[in-house]
Amino acid sequence: MWRASVLTILPDIFPGPLGASLAGKAMAAGAWSLDVVDIRTFATDRHRTVDDTPAGGGPGVVMKADVLGRAIDAAAADARPRLLLSPRGAPLTQARVEALAGGAGVVLICGRFEGVDERVIASRSLEEVSIGDYILSGGEIAAMALIDACVRLLPGVMGEPASRNEESFSEGLLEYPQYTRPQVWEGQPIPEVLVSGDHGKIAAWRQAEAEKLTRTRRPDLWTAFLSRFRGGSRTG
Amino acid sequence: MWRASVLTILPDIFPGPLGASLAGKAMAAGAWSLDVVDIRTFATDRHRTVDDTPAGGGPGVVMKADVLGRAIDAAAADARPRLLLSPRGAPLTQARVEALAGGAGVVLICGRFEGVDERVIASRSLEEVSIGDYILSGGEIAAMALIDACVRLLPGVMGEPASRNEESFSEGLLEYPQYTRPQVWEGQPIPEVLVSGDHGKIAAWRQAEAEKLTRTRRPDLWTAFLSRFRGGSRTG
Repeated sequence: MWRASVLTILPDIFPGPLGASLAGKAMAAGAWSLDVVDIRTFATDRHRTVDDTPAGGGPGVVMKADVLGRAIDAAAADARPRLLLSPRGAPLTQARVEALAGGAGVVLICGRFEGVDERVIASRSLEEVSIGDYILSGGEIAAMALIDACVRLLPGVMGEPASRNEESFSEGLLEYPQYTRPQVWEGQPIPEVLVSGDHGKIAAWRQAEAEKLTRTRRPDLWTAFLSRFRGGSRTG
Repeated sequence: MWRASVLTILPDIFPGPLGASLAGKAMAAGAWSLDVVDIRTFATDRHRTVDDTPAGGGPGVVMKADVLGRAIDAAAADARPRLLLSPRGAPLTQARVEALAGGAGVVLICGRFEGVDERVIASRSLEEVSIGDYILSGGEIAAMALIDACVRLLPGVMGEPASRNEESFSEGLLEYPQYTRPQVWEGQPIPEVLVSGDHGKIAAWRQAEAEKLTRTRRPDLWTAFLSRFRGGSRTG
């Protein structure tokens, strides 16, 4: 069973959205388990202090190495990757999600405040991962996003395995436009090719739309797609 | 008051993490409000159907334009930006978060399934926004991330306004390493400069560390930083 351990000072917000819908059903079905560890229980003073002022000054507080170090040692004695959710981390990608979903699980450490004492990051081999270039109030929602992305890829979780292959990023392109009934809505019909019944034409249209969308919206992904799929060709 | 409206087929998972900690306290204090709209209540059949099979075939289901169109018309009659959380969207950035936090609020549409009928995206001027290059089971956790990022920037929400200026991305660099007591932990001392009391040296060390980290981990941000801060100079 795929195991997610989450270290947080806000244990009560879990499982939250992960208890509903796809992830919730998968948890109930035994496809994955969630273990939530309250970092505060590893504090030793009577105020259960987990943070202190930054060495060298500056605003806010920093999460203490000693408390977090004890929490990690207690919760993560196995070989699962230990990821610290942090805007300083490597950007999360679908390729990384696939690799994580294919492993034994994850240990996720939710940063808060101005950050985490650097010594615990180094000594406990925490890998910093970022879900995007924006700042959250803490790592908790980022941990939820990472877990949700992994869980939907676990064996048996998604109804139709084909869904996975046709979606964004699995071949490096954004998804083509989708339509469903009614066939005419507010005067706008579904594109004719999609109701033609010609599967070859439909596949070609979708590929062309996905390429156009990627080229226009995400030149960075488009460049990567070109070098991945055409870079090997000397005649292209 | 900053207003977030969320259109979802999973209304029960809200506010979820947004009801706790910083965002929860800010909501209780009246800094922002959350309005959750159940898309399913805008379905007209007795099964409350919100989805149907994709035109042209393929796996999964697509969210229907007619139902979602009615939900948007009812929930978002004002001028707030209407954002569809989707992996096809423009990547969310801290600059965009700051702009959104400075406005009246947001209307967030949570996609599910294989996507949303393209006609409703066009006719209701939905702007697609992505929180990162990975696939979630739906837009709900992405909406939570976006709201959390905005709410912490609202006036009065963060204890110390200075926190905002010294953090990642606000000047285009990753954050410098942080340390706090104990001064020696597991044999590792806090870097000497940080306990020197020399504020000039501390600031220079932090700037150098932030630049080194950004150069090493995020060459893309480093290039952007250089062109933004040094691009104007002909002598650099």
